[in-house]
Amino acid sequence: MSSTSGGTAPIRSVLTLLAIAILAPAAAFADDGGALSQRHGNVIITLLGGMLVMFMQPGFALVECGLTRAKNAGNILMKNFLDFSLGTPLFFLVGFGVMFGANATGFFGNPSFCLSFADPATEDGLWAWTFFFFQTMFCATAATIVSGCVAERTDFKAYILVSVIVSVFIYPVSGSWCWNGLFAETKGWIESLGFIDFAGSTVVHSVGGWIGLAGAICVGPRLGKYTADGRARAIPGHNIPLVALGVLILWFAWFGFNCCSTTAADGTVGYIGVNTCLAACMGFVTAMVTIWFITGKPDPSMSMNGCLAGLVGITAGCFEVSPSGSIFIGAMCGVVVVFSVLFLDQKLRVDDPVGAVSVHGVCGTLGSILVAFFAAPGYGESVGILYGGDAHILLVQIIGAFAVAVWAFVTGFIAFKIVDKVVGLRVSREVELKGLDITEHGTDVYSGFQIFSNE
Amino acid sequence: MSSTSGGTAPIRSVLTLLAIAILAPAAAFADDGGALSQRHGNVIITLLGGMLVMFMQPGFALVECGLTRAKNAGNILMKNFLDFSLGTPLFFLVGFGVMFGANATGFFGNPSFCLSFADPATEDGLWAWTFFFFQTMFCATAATIVSGCVAERTDFKAYILVSVIVSVFIYPVSGSWCWNGLFAETKGWIESLGFIDFAGSTVVHSVGGWIGLAGAICVGPRLGKYTADGRARAIPGHNIPLVALGVLILWFAWFGFNCCSTTAADGTVGYIGVNTCLAACMGFVTAMVTIWFITGKPDPSMSMNGCLAGLVGITAGCFEVSPSGSIFIGAMCGVVVVFSVLFLDQKLRVDDPVGAVSVHGVCGTLGSILVAFFAAPGYGESVGILYGGDAHILLVQIIGAFAVAVWAFVTGFIAFKIVDKVVGLRVSREVELKGLDITEHGTDVYSGFQIFSNE
Amino acid sequence: MSSTSGGTAPIRSVLTLLAIAILAPAAAFADDGGALSQRHGNVIITLLGGMLVMFMQPGFALVECGLTRAKNAGNILMKNFLDFSLGTPLFFLVGFGVMFGANATGFFGNPSFCLSFADPATEDGLWAWTFFFFQTMFCATAATIVSGCVAERTDFKAYILVSVIVSVFIYPVSGSWCWNGLFAETKGWIESLGFIDFAGSTVVHSVGGWIGLAGAICVGPRLGKYTADGRARAIPGHNIPLVALGVLILWFAWFGFNCCSTTAADGTVGYIGVNTCLAACMGFVTAMVTIWFITGKPDPSMSMNGCLAGLVGITAGCFEVSPSGSIFIGAMCGVVVVFSVLFLDQKLRVDDPVGAVSVHGVCGTLGSILVAFFAAPGYGESVGILYGGDAHILLVQIIGAFAVAVWAFVTGFIAFKIVDKVVGLRVSREVELKGLDITEHGTDVYSGFQIFSNE
Repeated sequence: MSSTSGGTAPIRSVLTLLAIAILAPAAAFADDGGALSQRHGNVIITLLGGMLVMFMQPGFALVECGLTRAKNAGNILMKNFLDFSLGTPLFFLVGFGVMFGANATGFFGNPSFCLSFADPATEDGLWAWTFFFFQTMFCATAATIVSGCVAERTDFKAYILVSVIVSVFIYPVSGSWCWNGLFAETKGWIESLGFIDFAGSTVVHSVGGWIGLAGAICVGPRLGKYTADGRARAIPGHNIPLVALGVLILWFAWFGFNCCSTTAADGTVGYIGVNTCLAACMGFVTAMVTIWFITGKPDPSMSMNGCLAGLVGITAGCFEVSPSGSIFIGAMCGVVVVFSVLFLDQKLRVDDPVGAVSVHGVCGTLGSILVAFFAAPGYGESVGILYGGDAHILLVQIIGAFAVAVWAFVTGFIAFKIVDKVVGLRVSREVELKGLDITEHGTDVYSGFQIFSNE
Repeated sequence: MSSTSGGTAPIRSVLTLLAIAILAPAAAFADDGGALSQRHGNVIITLLGGMLVMFMQPGFALVECGLTRAKNAGNILMKNFLDFSLGTPLFFLVGFGVMFGANATGFFGNPSFCLSFADPATEDGLWAWTFFFFQTMFCATAATIVSGCVAERTDFKAYILVSVIVSVFIYPVSGSWCWNGLFAETKGWIESLGFIDFAGSTVVHSVGGWIGLAGAICVGPRLGKYTADGRARAIPGHNIPLVALGVLILWFAWFGFNCCSTTAADGTVGYIGVNTCLAACMGFVTAMVTIWFITGKPDPSMSMNGCLAGLVGITAGCFEVSPSGSIFIGAMCGVVVVFSVLFLDQKLRVDDPVGAVSVHGVCGTLGSILVAFFAAPGYGESVGILYGGDAHILLVQIIGAFAVAVWAFVTGFIAFKIVDKVVGLRVSREVELKGLDITEHGTDVYSGFQIFSNE
Repeated sequence: MSSTSGGTAPIRSVLTLLAIAILAPAAAFADDGGALSQRHGNVIITLLGGMLVMFMQPGFALVECGLTRAKNAGNILMKNFLDFSLGTPLFFLVGFGVMFGANATGFFGNPSFCLSFADPATEDGLWAWTFFFFQTMFCATAATIVSGCVAERTDFKAYILVSVIVSVFIYPVSGSWCWNGLFAETKGWIESLGFIDFAGSTVVHSVGGWIGLAGAICVGPRLGKYTADGRARAIPGHNIPLVALGVLILWFAWFGFNCCSTTAADGTVGYIGVNTCLAACMGFVTAMVTIWFITGKPDPSMSMNGCLAGLVGITAGCFEVSPSGSIFIGAMCGVVVVFSVLFLDQKLRVDDPVGAVSVHGVCGTLGSILVAFFAAPGYGESVGILYGGDAHILLVQIIGAFAVAVWAFVTGFIAFKIVDKVVGLRVSREVELKGLDITEHGTDVYSGFQIFSNE
């Protein structure tokens, strides 16, 4: 490692600037001789962020595919491709305007805003496109979370319809409540209260999780999930190595999600990365220990979900808390996700095959509230209760997180019910038993492998 | 998200610059206190691009592996590693000079150029290495496309020879026609006409696709692919989850391919990313709808190939077209790729196991021509016919795309024929039936799994 | 590709700077109008590096998972998650201080340094967090190498303990010998000699490899690995496509490892990338040719390990050698790794299921020594023996590489022996035969697949 070039290059570039300032007409200036503008530095960070958040798509696809059965692997992959591929053009045409267009009421932006906003001949227009690039990946993240909760028994066409509603309506409306002012001159109503959700524990993850909860309730449990006397049966996933890869891809991509949510090339991206990583680590460790304590075995799926829980939990506060704080937040999310998964599965009898309600819904909401306690002086802009901050911050975080949760769950529930009436949510018993791949997609995704039907 | 630091940092850095301009000698200047030069900003973008384009290698490897049979999985992976591993040193020693060395005729550069061009003690030399880093990954991309078209029946040694010819001769020669002036002071003959191929629909993808077509014809269809009465039989791939992962990896890496082809840290990278993403989305959606309409089922492999078709199609024009235009280009490529795959497979009886001829050849050529229609004022530097531009642009795009296609197909055909004479292209019937893994590589890549031979 | 924006943007930004210098008060300055500081450019590169080095985790996880048997796939994945998830908080709390804290003796830094070092309200503090982000990923890399060497027969709790010792003690102590001065004002004793290990062939890879050798010896070979008459039997990995993906992920991530070890946005990152890529390519090619020559077949696993060997070998010198030099280094590592794997497996009868001792230990040490020969004038800061440099450099490289090797092996050996006494290193015969997944983790990671026990 060396700082030699780093040492001489700035000197040279400053001398160049001086020479120009004193002597040269601008036209004599060579292409690459000037300084990079802060604006274009911000573009680099935001571009990198958008790329990485897009890379969450294979992460989610693998996690959902691996945690379900081989006979439905193609179907869940198609749903993941579909919500991204359909949601992105729709977010471009409608959703982005709803979320970031001028917002007279504080409740939603102007949907007609989309196609005309960005003139690429201006730097402001170019920035708008870069910002859109980043934001459309967040929409895709929220949408794709839902597919896991309703996996293995939901009709493909029905899923398409729900996905459209999420991308053009549910996600951007609550998004506008919290983030409208990041782009517009106006602000959303929750944002106006001072709500902190730096990278989207509430705006992105919890929205996906609570819609998924509504979906899992509406579509009902998979055949064989609950015995006649009401006991939950485990339906193991078919490919845990793919789950592990998916989780590690998500972890990697999450650095784009969190660090690059500065949308600015500044010095804070480093500690945001540290916070993100520590929370993921602690989530893994505490989830592993918790399930080990409960069942006597360190279960891989549950531990890996703990890792995701820590990531979801730190997302709201990654800019506001210290690394020590992120250790606590990640550790708590790792414990909570295990109990939440077990509670949902065994007590509430909601069949969420991949645990996404607990990971994204519960830990997204929890993480948003914990910011009120752990926001540290010197980091970010707020001071949490544990550091002597005003208790008002807690109220705001609770209001914001719950308002979005209620919105997502209720509108999600209505959306699933309407779609159920229109095309039918649930595949037939026969289709479910045979598997959705062969029946709905005419394919066997592991052609040649001997696979036994496990239910 | 916050712009606080983004707000104060530039002020501070400007004040520092002023202080220096007025008061301080250069030597008193601390290491990190100056401004980043535009040149080093460009290096960041180009480095990021090279990294990401390299990451296309696992994308292609997984797509090709997953779409073929388990008994040949190791062989196709080895071919993917091999063309990258052998092609890169050869492009360093010979190919880069042929493509980017001084070009007296307009038809090829100076191959002896390679080893001496870049003095790392100068900023120009350092830039040359960075540019080479980016470009060698493009060569690897073109080379690796071929392996899919001739999968499951091509001799390993024969493939090595073809791969060498692609990397040192076929790819760099046609590359020099279109892109020589990006680095040299001279220009290639197609480039001189004003041909637009921003990131390589023609230069990279179609070259790979058309060489692959030549290969698929020369090596002939796999055993059992066509029945005695000439009907095509489907030979399903063995691992569609790996295909899905490969496609999503390619999608991610394509942001490096397209956005970073600016080789400059400027504001345009954002809308290039938007264009790239929208085209991929639309390619997926229209391919899915098309195959759904034709066969009654939304087939995963075909839909995912639609995604790649959209990406290939937008690559030529990603800098020139608007996001609305990219929606049309992606949508068209998604439809065309389905018909092209079926036509090649069932009418022409060319056995291309992964559909690469249609994805890279057909859609690469199509995308290059569509730029002539969709190039939008305000984006890039050209105005397409749909926006009132001169029809001359269409002629140029057709000439350029077809000249390269003919070059790649004809030289590819000759290369495959020569190699066939020298070492024999096709493995024996027995080897093909047993699978290339066990016979050519002495390995079973899924050791322990029960796998049935699906011919 | 275009440099239009790159051409006008700097001019505009310079004109803006001039206007401000002459006319405007700082407060009138718009948020994004200034220049990006070199410091924040360095943050971008270092952040990117940290992200990519983290992405080595799935790379290693897949390589180790794929090269072992299906019945232990979940266990090896859990060990990979665990050493990262536990090691990172520990490196934060203790290890970073040991490695980079002020170092009075030259033998270790101040462990109490960690929690207080970085004030996020200063640019120096922000840089410290960014640097930590990068460095903690290196620690995770070293730690995760060990798991492969002791795969398929090591107790999970025992592995946890060893992993803790690596992250808080073994890795940071030898790290402080070589790299302390990258952050502290003091230097480690090997560093003071002028030892060159730019990105960690010795500091990171060889440490992991030599600890792994100690572990493989202590835990002993897997059941069935050696016949009664002492012949080695091959135990093939269960999923080579995952290995291929893992190797290509590692290759991609290695660009972050090597290029971004400049921790500076300068022009050298480009040729470092070229060096890294050429060495990987040549390692693949020569390992493939070597094993082809020895066994008559181009074996996929061995060839892919050659690729990693090239990458490990170039890591020390990637900043110091020319691309031509990197070709030689990569080629040598590819040959050496094959003979080393065979020697260890068949002569020394050390059972290293994934070949990590040869890849990381042997080639890490070899690569560090080869810098003394190949360091090229104009690149980096040293001149190697082949270019007429002082032979003293060879002595230093040998001393440094061997001192670290001895340290890692001896402390690793002691650590494994102590852990063996305390909790027992080796699982029972019954557990090993049944597989660690079902016995230690209560899971079948390929649920539904028919898998035969191969041993």
